[in-house]
Amino acid sequence: MNEIKNTLVIGTGLIGTSIALGLTAHGVKVFLSDIDSSALDAAVKVSGASKYDGEDIALVVVATPPASVANLIAKAAIDHPLAIITDVASVKGSIFRELENLGTSGWSRIVGGHPMAGREVSGAIGAQGNLFLDRAWVIASNDQTSEAAVATVKDLVESLGAFPIFRTIEEHDRAVALISHTPQVVASVLAGELMDAEGSYIELAGQGIRDTIRIAGSDSNLWTEILSENSHYISQQVTQVANHLLDFASALDGGDRKSVTEKLVKGNHGKDRLPGKHGTSQQSTSTLVVRLDDKPGELARLFTVAAQANVNLEDVRIDHSLGQPTGLVELTVALKAIELLTPALEAEGFVVIS
Amino acid sequence: MNEIKNTLVIGTGLIGTSIALGLTAHGVKVFLSDIDSSALDAAVKVSGASKYDGEDIALVVVATPPASVANLIAKAAIDHPLAIITDVASVKGSIFRELENLGTSGWSRIVGGHPMAGREVSGAIGAQGNLFLDRAWVIASNDQTSEAAVATVKDLVESLGAFPIFRTIEEHDRAVALISHTPQVVASVLAGELMDAEGSYIELAGQGIRDTIRIAGSDSNLWTEILSENSHYISQQVTQVANHLLDFASALDGGDRKSVTEKLVKGNHGKDRLPGKHGTSQQSTSTLVVRLDDKPGELARLFTVAAQANVNLEDVRIDHSLGQPTGLVELTVALKAIELLTPALEAEGFVVIS
Repeated sequence: MNEIKNTLVIGTGLIGTSIALGLTAHGVKVFLSDIDSSALDAAVKVSGASKYDGEDIALVVVATPPASVANLIAKAAIDHPLAIITDVASVKGSIFRELENLGTSGWSRIVGGHPMAGREVSGAIGAQGNLFLDRAWVIASNDQTSEAAVATVKDLVESLGAFPIFRTIEEHDRAVALISHTPQVVASVLAGELMDAEGSYIELAGQGIRDTIRIAGSDSNLWTEILSENSHYISQQVTQVANHLLDFASALDGGDRKSVTEKLVKGNHGKDRLPGKHGTSQQSTSTLVVRLDDKPGELARLFTVAAQANVNLEDVRIDHSLGQPTGLVELTVALKAIELLTPALEAEGFVVIS
Repeated sequence: MNEIKNTLVIGTGLIGTSIALGLTAHGVKVFLSDIDSSALDAAVKVSGASKYDGEDIALVVVATPPASVANLIAKAAIDHPLAIITDVASVKGSIFRELENLGTSGWSRIVGGHPMAGREVSGAIGAQGNLFLDRAWVIASNDQTSEAAVATVKDLVESLGAFPIFRTIEEHDRAVALISHTPQVVASVLAGELMDAEGSYIELAGQGIRDTIRIAGSDSNLWTEILSENSHYISQQVTQVANHLLDFASALDGGDRKSVTEKLVKGNHGKDRLPGKHGTSQQSTSTLVVRLDDKPGELARLFTVAAQANVNLEDVRIDHSLGQPTGLVELTVALKAIELLTPALEAEGFVVIS
């Protein structure tokens, strides 16, 4: 990893300010600019970076909302003729198409970037230098990007504690349409159905629908922009999902059980394609349900027992039971760890349900 | 809560055997029957219940797969002319329609039941008397059910540690179509799309799609039966979701940002209608991300710190980062607890990210 030289971050929102914070912590000289001067002042105060005052710049990071990114990249390519220029927008194709229309020079110095650190909770809590720690950060080159430019952005990503994943622009946009944008649309639509439902129906909701629509809580303005920038691939994918749902409804209406089973099995296999933790197969894990008094300390006691039994928890989930004073905790562990964990928990008085 | 009298459980799968176990633990005299004599022998051995040998029965619980339930209820109404009869199938209307076609006597003694203790993991681990602890159990009467019959089933539910929720048959079936069956279909279809995708796309998958399709891992044979029994309401609801998805795709294609935002906002509001933990509003919580070395003991240490700070965790989620040796843990706590928890964690050396 090479040292990052003078860096200009354009746009001082959550992502931009977090990048500035992370870089200044490594001793990198960082400059900030923003069209909103009070936002800029606040970011300067928080980050230890300076307002941009005309120094030579080696790296420009455009961290503004997607709609303004292409213009700012094009301008940066002129203003900073030696700098590598990257961005952090969650969609890449629309930006590069706009750059083409703008007749941008400096293609070899322009590298698309996308840190996968988004949360459904919006960034009101504020910027942090370690926001990108252990997150994936896609680096998407155009076909003229130089190797040196890619290497510089890779250094940026790694110095912020993230890990780089290399994709073409089209691969990136198709991939996020499938694995991020379409799930958002589906979750939002499914959650929207609850608005038309009787309250007494919703009371029966369990963990299943709760997980399925969790991301429906996302910020609607931000997601309008994200979805609009990648609308072509998303619309294709969402239409395909809708048609498959209509097929499913037809199979149900026609009493075609064979077809229903096939569609459910396809879903089983699709889910199995998701990467497991640390690349391990998901199928080597099993799930245990433990009953817990819902008071401070019980979870700590549970995990202390797991640690003493030398069992690593792959996942933890707390089930919410309607109006009940106790909780059910679902622990995902390696298959072979079940026989260690169950007796250890029971010996400490925990009720292991299944 | 009154004492449960002699009970006959018909069907010795996971649910039936768990009911038998839970009741015998309370000293109830339980009898079992099953058309599969080796399954029956195994259940007798596990549960402490006896094979049915002709004694007087006060309560019959039919716990067989949905397709055979109506016939067995009708037969029980004749064989046990004084008994209250209930079942545990996850769909109710199709069973009562079949009972009507069979010309069943004893309507006043028949009460539908549905324990909401299902998991996407199938029940291979075996029956447990506490399977229903703290779970909702819907009691669905027909319009001739006697109050005494409902009271008996309520006693059954409460003696197993579950809590009763009262609904009509139609309310139950429409509700589960909306909050359980349609989410299953949607998750299965969305997961199925991953079968047609490039592996390099799937590698970018994060927590969002992982949650959205979690229940796509469900048992396909069991769910074929469940969905088929409630196909009318599910097909309606799934078709409506599909049409709303097509509307969404049109809004994206037409660049209608106002409509896109409206649909996302509708999803925000729909999600907010889900009951919070213990009936509290979801909006009074906030989320904290903590970095953790992925080794036994670190979670225990984290929860010990939370307990010592007297902070109750509403939810816990472990983020999986592709190929990384560390983990990110998302903690949901009451808003005002954030200011207690963050400094407490940092004082113990944890990296709090946002």
